[in-house]
Amino acid sequence: MEFLVRFETALPDSFTAEQVAGLKESERERAMELRKDGALKRLWRVPGRRAVVGLWEAADATELHHALSSLPQFPWMDVQVEPLATHPQEQG
Amino acid sequence: MEFLVRFETALPDSFTAEQVAGLKESERERAMELRKDGALKRLWRVPGRRAVVGLWEAADATELHHALSSLPQFPWMDVQVEPLATHPQEQG
Amino acid sequence: MEFLVRFETALPDSFTAEQVAGLKESERERAMELRKDGALKRLWRVPGRRAVVGLWEAADATELHHALSSLPQFPWMDVQVEPLATHPQEQG
Amino acid sequence: MEFLVRFETALPDSFTAEQVAGLKESERERAMELRKDGALKRLWRVPGRRAVVGLWEAADATELHHALSSLPQFPWMDVQVEPLATHPQEQG
Amino acid sequence: MEFLVRFETALPDSFTAEQVAGLKESERERAMELRKDGALKRLWRVPGRRAVVGLWEAADATELHHALSSLPQFPWMDVQVEPLATHPQEQG
Amino acid sequence: MEFLVRFETALPDSFTAEQVAGLKESERERAMELRKDGALKRLWRVPGRRAVVGLWEAADATELHHALSSLPQFPWMDVQVEPLATHPQEQG
Amino acid sequence: MEFLVRFETALPDSFTAEQVAGLKESERERAMELRKDGALKRLWRVPGRRAVVGLWEAADATELHHALSSLPQFPWMDVQVEPLATHPQEQG
Amino acid sequence: MEFLVRFETALPDSFTAEQVAGLKESERERAMELRKDGALKRLWRVPGRRAVVGLWEAADATELHHALSSLPQFPWMDVQVEPLATHPQEQG
Amino acid sequence: MEFLVRFETALPDSFTAEQVAGLKESERERAMELRKDGALKRLWRVPGRRAVVGLWEAADATELHHALSSLPQFPWMDVQVEPLATHPQEQG
Amino acid sequence: MEFLVRFETALPDSFTAEQVAGLKESERERAMELRKDGALKRLWRVPGRRAVVGLWEAADATELHHALSSLPQFPWMDVQVEPLATHPQEQG
Repeated sequence: MEFLVRFETALPDSFTAEQVAGLKESERERAMELRKDGALKRLWRVPGRRAVVGLWEAADATELHHALSSLPQFPWMDVQVEPLATHPQEQG
Repeated sequence: MEFLVRFETALPDSFTAEQVAGLKESERERAMELRKDGALKRLWRVPGRRAVVGLWEAADATELHHALSSLPQFPWMDVQVEPLATHPQEQG
Repeated sequence: MEFLVRFETALPDSFTAEQVAGLKESERERAMELRKDGALKRLWRVPGRRAVVGLWEAADATELHHALSSLPQFPWMDVQVEPLATHPQEQG
Repeated sequence: MEFLVRFETALPDSFTAEQVAGLKESERERAMELRKDGALKRLWRVPGRRAVVGLWEAADATELHHALSSLPQFPWMDVQVEPLATHPQEQG
Repeated sequence: MEFLVRFETALPDSFTAEQVAGLKESERERAMELRKDGALKRLWRVPGRRAVVGLWEAADATELHHALSSLPQFPWMDVQVEPLATHPQEQG
Repeated sequence: MEFLVRFETALPDSFTAEQVAGLKESERERAMELRKDGALKRLWRVPGRRAVVGLWEAADATELHHALSSLPQFPWMDVQVEPLATHPQEQG
Repeated sequence: MEFLVRFETALPDSFTAEQVAGLKESERERAMELRKDGALKRLWRVPGRRAVVGLWEAADATELHHALSSLPQFPWMDVQVEPLATHPQEQG
Repeated sequence: MEFLVRFETALPDSFTAEQVAGLKESERERAMELRKDGALKRLWRVPGRRAVVGLWEAADATELHHALSSLPQFPWMDVQVEPLATHPQEQG
Repeated sequence: MEFLVRFETALPDSFTAEQVAGLKESERERAMELRKDGALKRLWRVPGRRAVVGLWEAADATELHHALSSLPQFPWMDVQVEPLATHPQEQG
Repeated sequence: MEFLVRFETALPDSFTAEQVAGLKESERERAMELRKDGALKRLWRVPGRRAVVGLWEAADATELHHALSSLPQFPWMDVQVEPLATHPQEQG
């Protein structure tokens, strides 16, 4: 099942530049793993914002939550999840 | 997977009392079938409104859409769907 | 450039069943053409609603508007367009 | 009487990992007591958020408030309460 | 248990003046009965609007829904219900 | 004239338990004086929130503001005021 | 006491041009009487809309409601009322 | 002074195709006159909607209202006006 | 041209009582100058809030911005500006 | 392609006056470069707010994001982007 997921990330001002860089690096690594696992299918940037829209695949909302909460920046993300149904035009 | 689903129904003013009664009867019958199938697990009335909140079970959003759109009043319902994940306290 | 586009369609109650069926058929045909042209890339149904979310490709907002307004149901659709930027992880 | 209750929890950044762990442990213990007492009937996680939806039973809103405010994380929770009426299909 | 209930009434334009007058008279009569029964405790008008705020007493949301839906204008009212808990300062 | 007044109180995290307790005690004392003066007629707790709804009486909005701003917690309250008109059913 | 009152007027499409003109004329006459009585103190037009903002004076919300509902277009107006308190800088 | 003005136009379903075409033609003519007068400086289409954003110049809000309400489609337009101040970087 | 301007002021918690008193005094002085200049015509307090509504006069939005930003508390004010057009009933 | 872009800037209270002045100076310099490049076409101030509305030109949303995020104040700006289509009246 696919989900449309919107993140807006706000890291605390108190983080040092190194902390931010380290977090972004580990975020990218974990995202790459989730792509390999087929959980994360596409990612777009919302222009002008520290926000992304992503297309995710998961068996259900519980599995999706585990994937999202495995991201290192999860504690500082505001996340909105929208379930998607298959459109008849998409089928074979 | 469970979903929390909110309906608000607004039948057209042009319907006769018989049309409304017939529609409500077939709605109840279809809802009962969906309960037997395990798709509809609980239903509550929102006090003061022509609205209900329901707890539904479906394999995914596509199956949920099919169940919802099988309701005879579906063309006149405004529906909001919220996906639910399992809470750790609910497990075993 | 990609756009995320959300439609909610509300055909007038005065339409006959044949008018609705004819409109849906011509809508599907036009959508298929837009897919072949590469304008419409993906379509999802919003569960419980007469709404879809689509991923569209267009040179700019003007070309997108022409594609959207070529849909036979366009006069009865409420449309929200969101521009998408490429995410660095999607490149190369 | 049943209530649908939505919590969003935001613990202060200044809490240490131990304080957070201790608070979560005592939260779980108090929730378990409320389940045994029949006050808390079901709990779901909202995917992607530090939020839960719960189905609660209480004689009235005053008793519900006492149950909710007995949770150790209550000072850091944003809580929305919705009263639920019995749906005719649920009876007998 | 007390509830704060807000109504906004919009009778159809097609009603004749007599229909409106008859409906308002039967509405007032039913409201007076609900006052005698102790269900309706206070009523205020929202200035400038066809809206009222009322303080209601009911055992629970189900009983409240029955009282509200017994009002003759109920089919044309938009109703918002807010549950109220007892404030410690109000006690003895 | 009556007003419906909604408060949501958020004391700073930096307050000590004693400061909070002292403030709550002086708040209760001032509220009791306002009741004796007839300014504060009823108070309800919003279940699950640090919020109250009150029914106030004042000659006008200026007198109401003086009553509200005399509360010791006023600097930390978010206040919403709604003017109420007398409903015809309430008279004589 | 002063109130800031916002009206948005939407006359039914079924009204003839004469009905509209007659209603606007009687509206202006009643507004002029309310000005002479001191109830209506200022009126502004919201640019681009069939809406006005007015500054009204009334003993209380009940008297204001009577003044507003005496306007011939009242059945077709959406009205928002905001109570105003005297600012200390305005005094003597 | 410049204003940013957003229109959303909804012609009644009862209009014939000729009425719509005639209205659009007279709308375009009047818009062209307003451009020559310097009142209308730029116009953009909101993609996917029957809506436009325009940059207008007028001495004040009263003159702007006269320009906007001179458009033949004005009775069926929902209009939002935003006043704009000169940015220091735009000067000299 | 007139504008309706709404301010909500939130001074930082870190300000000392003297800083606040000094700022309020200089705010009042500057407001008095703006009244003498004819820029500020009326001011009302929003009951229960640290907010005011004001009626301002300025040649255009640029001049209004200069007047507003000359207030000493401007850095801590959330300001909403609404342009007002002259109502036909106000003329002559 | 043109975009309407709205910024609201909120620099941290902890910044010194020099930091703020330096940031504003480098912001103005970068904005001037973006004007020379044709990316930034017009800028207006929203009266009463630390906000601006701008008209931008970019090949697509990705190029726009790069232009916006090159502004020195970008980390402290809340940005809303709206895509604009060409209006038929603007052509030729």
